[in-house]
Amino acid sequence: MTGPAFTPLVESLPSTVPFVGPETQERARGSAFAARLGANESVFGPSPKAVAAMQAAAAECWKYGDPENHDLRHALAERHGVDPAHIAIGEGIDGMFGYLNRMFVEPGVTVATSLGAYPTFNFHVAGYGGRLVTVPFVDDREDPESLLALAAREGARLIYLSNPDNPMGSWHPGKTIEAMVERLPAGALLCLDEAYIDFAPDGTAPEIDPADPRVIRFRTFSKAWGMAGARVAYSISAAPLATAFNKVRNHFGVNRVAQAGALASLADPGWLAHVRGEVEAARARIGRISAANGLTALPSAANFVAIDCGADGAFAKAVLEGLIARGIFARMPFAAPQNRCIRISAGRPADLDAFEAALPVALAAARGE
Amino acid sequence: MTGPAFTPLVESLPSTVPFVGPETQERARGSAFAARLGANESVFGPSPKAVAAMQAAAAECWKYGDPENHDLRHALAERHGVDPAHIAIGEGIDGMFGYLNRMFVEPGVTVATSLGAYPTFNFHVAGYGGRLVTVPFVDDREDPESLLALAAREGARLIYLSNPDNPMGSWHPGKTIEAMVERLPAGALLCLDEAYIDFAPDGTAPEIDPADPRVIRFRTFSKAWGMAGARVAYSISAAPLATAFNKVRNHFGVNRVAQAGALASLADPGWLAHVRGEVEAARARIGRISAANGLTALPSAANFVAIDCGADGAFAKAVLEGLIARGIFARMPFAAPQNRCIRISAGRPADLDAFEAALPVALAAARGE
Repeated sequence: MTGPAFTPLVESLPSTVPFVGPETQERARGSAFAARLGANESVFGPSPKAVAAMQAAAAECWKYGDPENHDLRHALAERHGVDPAHIAIGEGIDGMFGYLNRMFVEPGVTVATSLGAYPTFNFHVAGYGGRLVTVPFVDDREDPESLLALAAREGARLIYLSNPDNPMGSWHPGKTIEAMVERLPAGALLCLDEAYIDFAPDGTAPEIDPADPRVIRFRTFSKAWGMAGARVAYSISAAPLATAFNKVRNHFGVNRVAQAGALASLADPGWLAHVRGEVEAARARIGRISAANGLTALPSAANFVAIDCGADGAFAKAVLEGLIARGIFARMPFAAPQNRCIRISAGRPADLDAFEAALPVALAAARGE
Repeated sequence: MTGPAFTPLVESLPSTVPFVGPETQERARGSAFAARLGANESVFGPSPKAVAAMQAAAAECWKYGDPENHDLRHALAERHGVDPAHIAIGEGIDGMFGYLNRMFVEPGVTVATSLGAYPTFNFHVAGYGGRLVTVPFVDDREDPESLLALAAREGARLIYLSNPDNPMGSWHPGKTIEAMVERLPAGALLCLDEAYIDFAPDGTAPEIDPADPRVIRFRTFSKAWGMAGARVAYSISAAPLATAFNKVRNHFGVNRVAQAGALASLADPGWLAHVRGEVEAARARIGRISAANGLTALPSAANFVAIDCGADGAFAKAVLEGLIARGIFARMPFAAPQNRCIRISAGRPADLDAFEAALPVALAAARGE
């Protein structure tokens, strides 16, 4: 008995889960984490209005969701002051990255990103047979200049940039992104990942004509809106590109309850302001905890902070493992020299109490003390 | 300013939504449907235990879902008496069909199905550049004999069969499917869509060795479990194929709240029995309503009934449009001669009251009376 043959491309792909989830680690540990600060989830949760909307919608989930995501799409268009034709909605930014790569990437196509930038984007590039080319971070930031030069030199069709950046929390002013757009190589698409934009200083979001065919920007309900598990994100792009998602997407793929929650979130802008305030306070406290332990917290425009552990990647990894062993779920950058850092999500006071207690012990253990 | 080039395959695809949703029709009508009987959703809803679990999980949706779907996968394995390694979980059967086609289909690959069988499967075949070959239904059933002959003749890599069938509600005994498996051409994979199996007579589900690499079967929480809008389905297959979904899937794609709802459903088998009873009663009543109007309801092993309108596709379409105009959301088969029918989902008494009132008026209008 033989089964069917995979396509050669799929045959060549690994069967791995790119990110090990905290639940997997908890099952291996045999106990729950005291603080869940590794995935830049928003521990401050969704808006109470969103929770109420999702609870009310739960009994109605026998109905498929609206495949046009009509109401949410229109509410988002109003929020951003664009025509609904510029908005596409999908199952989280990860899901939309899959569709985007499917539309543009095949063997022979080149994609440019930064070494150590978001791995799930790279997962999809590889998954469609693309060739990934990278430039290093400069001063712990993704670097528009070298990305542009790389993309021009290598003939990249897609250029990935996150602003603010994950995993470092660094950012560029919107003006820098606007200048980058003006210098994009012909035929290239800037994939601007703005998952963390709600935490950034005013002026970080660039002004971009939504009809510009050279840019697609991604926003999500997973971060500031506190709905990572609901899987709702959207893009703003030229209308033909927004419509093109219909060629490949899972039309009924967005959970109906999640649609209701996202829509209710938008009606509660005060929640965003509240979460921003909590994140700002948490970032400041993570900075103080770092300093008290002789470490340097990097400036962050996101809901997490990269902490420079002051040595190499092996040392930071030892600190990270020490934290995990002490019940703190955290992660760290993949690429040097950013991997001298650990990355801690903004937490509630109790989460950061637990982190504050665990960090000196983890540090001492990493130093072999 | 020019944007990037699509891949030639994606460039060739249409940007259409394969199924127009009822919400779109309601927006066009300017009023809600009186009865929602077009998408084979379960109007009987999810288990109250599932609703409670989803309501409790709503506030926790700031956490990503477990990317391994561990608890649900293990509960399903226990339910089916198989090792968890045989279970893969995804964002509804539609989402899983996307992944499956991505794994096996590329230009040059042939896929065999029945003319008029599930269009979303075909959407994915086309989306990956496959060549779709079809055989007609025989006596309003998908026909294993001619599918096997077609697959062998055309060298099909995938063979799609739904049992019970959508849109006709017809079915084959499990023994027929078992015999079909034994005669599959070498290198072919039988994609057995069992979305409606919970409504079928005992003996409709075949006994298939879960380690058999020639078959993958699909089950869903969208039908009998009443959670279509939640987007949770699963497959049972040989372990290497189950694992291979990890090559391409959106690992964090299953909504966390939906995972909780699905898990709670499995702990409430009484709900399934309740829904089965309701569906059986609804099918019988749809039969009586049909007969009272001089029409023939076809036997059904699903949660819907195909009603033979007694003439051609144009007439059935006129009846369908008459129902829709009178507030009854329904659909009909695409292909002749099945398109002599309309398809009505099992409804609650009030839904079927509305259908009963609208049908004679729609029929008279279609007859030009």
